[in-house]
Amino acid sequence: MDILKELEVFRRRDIPYSRVLGSMCTIPHPIAVEAHKMFIETNLGDPGIFRGTADLEKRLVRFLGEILHHPNAEGYICSGGTEANIQAIRSFRNLRKVDRPNIVVPKSAHFSFDKIGDLLCIEVRKAELDDEFRVDSTSLESLIDDRTVGIVGIAGTTELGQVDPIDELSKIAVEYGVDLHVDAAFGGLVIPFMDRNIDFDFKLEGVSTITVDPHKMGMATIPAGGILFRDESYPGSLEVKTPYLTSRSQWTLTGTRPGTGVASAYAVLKHLGFKGMKKIVRHCLKMTKIVKEEMESLGFEPVIEPVMNVVCFKTEHAEEIKEELMKREWIISTIPNPKAIRLVLMPHVTEDVITNFISEIKNVLVTLNVRPK
Amino acid sequence: MDILKELEVFRRRDIPYSRVLGSMCTIPHPIAVEAHKMFIETNLGDPGIFRGTADLEKRLVRFLGEILHHPNAEGYICSGGTEANIQAIRSFRNLRKVDRPNIVVPKSAHFSFDKIGDLLCIEVRKAELDDEFRVDSTSLESLIDDRTVGIVGIAGTTELGQVDPIDELSKIAVEYGVDLHVDAAFGGLVIPFMDRNIDFDFKLEGVSTITVDPHKMGMATIPAGGILFRDESYPGSLEVKTPYLTSRSQWTLTGTRPGTGVASAYAVLKHLGFKGMKKIVRHCLKMTKIVKEEMESLGFEPVIEPVMNVVCFKTEHAEEIKEELMKREWIISTIPNPKAIRLVLMPHVTEDVITNFISEIKNVLVTLNVRPK
Repeated sequence: MDILKELEVFRRRDIPYSRVLGSMCTIPHPIAVEAHKMFIETNLGDPGIFRGTADLEKRLVRFLGEILHHPNAEGYICSGGTEANIQAIRSFRNLRKVDRPNIVVPKSAHFSFDKIGDLLCIEVRKAELDDEFRVDSTSLESLIDDRTVGIVGIAGTTELGQVDPIDELSKIAVEYGVDLHVDAAFGGLVIPFMDRNIDFDFKLEGVSTITVDPHKMGMATIPAGGILFRDESYPGSLEVKTPYLTSRSQWTLTGTRPGTGVASAYAVLKHLGFKGMKKIVRHCLKMTKIVKEEMESLGFEPVIEPVMNVVCFKTEHAEEIKEELMKREWIISTIPNPKAIRLVLMPHVTEDVITNFISEIKNVLVTLNVRPK
Repeated sequence: MDILKELEVFRRRDIPYSRVLGSMCTIPHPIAVEAHKMFIETNLGDPGIFRGTADLEKRLVRFLGEILHHPNAEGYICSGGTEANIQAIRSFRNLRKVDRPNIVVPKSAHFSFDKIGDLLCIEVRKAELDDEFRVDSTSLESLIDDRTVGIVGIAGTTELGQVDPIDELSKIAVEYGVDLHVDAAFGGLVIPFMDRNIDFDFKLEGVSTITVDPHKMGMATIPAGGILFRDESYPGSLEVKTPYLTSRSQWTLTGTRPGTGVASAYAVLKHLGFKGMKKIVRHCLKMTKIVKEEMESLGFEPVIEPVMNVVCFKTEHAEEIKEELMKREWIISTIPNPKAIRLVLMPHVTEDVITNFISEIKNVLVTLNVRPK
């Protein structure tokens, strides 16, 4: 069919993941792709029709809850981290019902919180970071007032992969009687599989809601975001009635929504299990270590010692390096403060990818005639 | 692989579309499925990586714009009608910047407008309908005040497939200087292919934004919703900065988003063309006529003469009939006012499906021991 050939031309212009070191998404696991195909026509917006798929979603939510120390958490699989963050903050706002509400987030919070401020008519206050780019809990605490409906901590910041001191935030949440949302879109499927223990989830009593995206480190197909709530009062505050559907009410943000992400995420987690996920995470951390050493030997210096599989290197020439790499069809990203280039070592990054990348960046430095810093 | 067998068990419990007469979704076109598979790992949230896919989205938006009489419309392919409606109303709200804003929608508006009211902190005023269940433009006009940021008309109501008098609403929008959003999630890919001419799109000068969902009558894979804006000022009002991405800013609601819906929607529209879409719509309207005649011969009476491929039949026993059909694994839906059962004749509904359905509903009437009305 001609149209498929036409589409192929567009698809070929996309840059293959083997040259992408700047995304928190990755090539879906082969089992995810197979599962996805099987559920391609499903619609979780109508759970009375798609009964089996709806049941599978419940199991996946339970599975994610188990990983995050709360098997009975409520939740659903959504379009991604932004929807998950919206729904958490919206539930805090709806449960509190204060005039001119605010939330306090770390300065390092994902840009989706800027969308959320606009969308939900909520003031977003930004707390300072410490030298290691974790939120300064004293700064965060000082921004809480009577109109604060919730605070946010990040488990795996987008820029640096840093983890906020969620245990301290949990204590603050309990003390002030406000809800705590943990944005673990990235780290939620990394930290539980690391050798190092970091408390960040429902184990901590102050944590009300968690974002955890299977389409990032869970190697599920897009879209597969996840939002978990400590109990049903949170999603209950989001409910609208749904005439002309097989269900009576709906607490999701979207109406029609695919079952593909549910199937693909479930397939990967069940197929790999705890051991398999540990192996994936170990691989990514090893690649992070290798790229860090290679970059250091070129004269680059990391912004912080990497906590997970994200690493940034300080350089005044960050934008130029990114642009020059892009001309050569390599994708990295940058962060503005401190000026640095940013690499994310997702499961698709192998030692070969790193070897090719390092040789390319050497050429880039020569072409630009700049030194690393 | 064992996990795929496990998934199959869940998938088999879903009710096949051949027994579904109560959904505005359908079996995706075979070409949509092929296109979808080709783009399964794409992410339009990072258009610098997925350059080809991003370009394809622009072409699809242009294509939809051509169908809706405005090839230069701005827009994007989103998660579905709810996101599209959110973004339209959010842009109206952001451009107007009034205190305690309101919008006026028909009473027949989709339940997503209740979500929107909550989400965007906006009052949703509901205008009365006329005898034919179209919005009464006098009622709608009377609800407009200084705080009204926009009005809404529906081209293909969810309950009855009715079309509001968009031309009258357009005049009101121009007169009062407010924006008009047309929710054509369903009708946007039906009306342009009907023999009967109904003005509802950008041809009318008052229309600012249109929701049009390829994953409904466009037979694309889920998720493939669409939002079109008359000019870039609307999406511009939704923009946030996006550090650490290949783009500088983003006006979509979600961050990461799949390219599958873009590919599948483009493939179907390009493959079928205007002629092919006309044929699909003609089929659906023919099935609507057949089912209406069959139901009338059983003693049922339609709520209104069907405008497109949705038809409702008055009955005091609507809920019982729906429940009894569900026990027999047939899916229809109901509407509350007037009490009626609702059938949607999507492309997957053939004469055989109708024959099976009519024989089943006869049995249901006998089992319940009730008469049609």
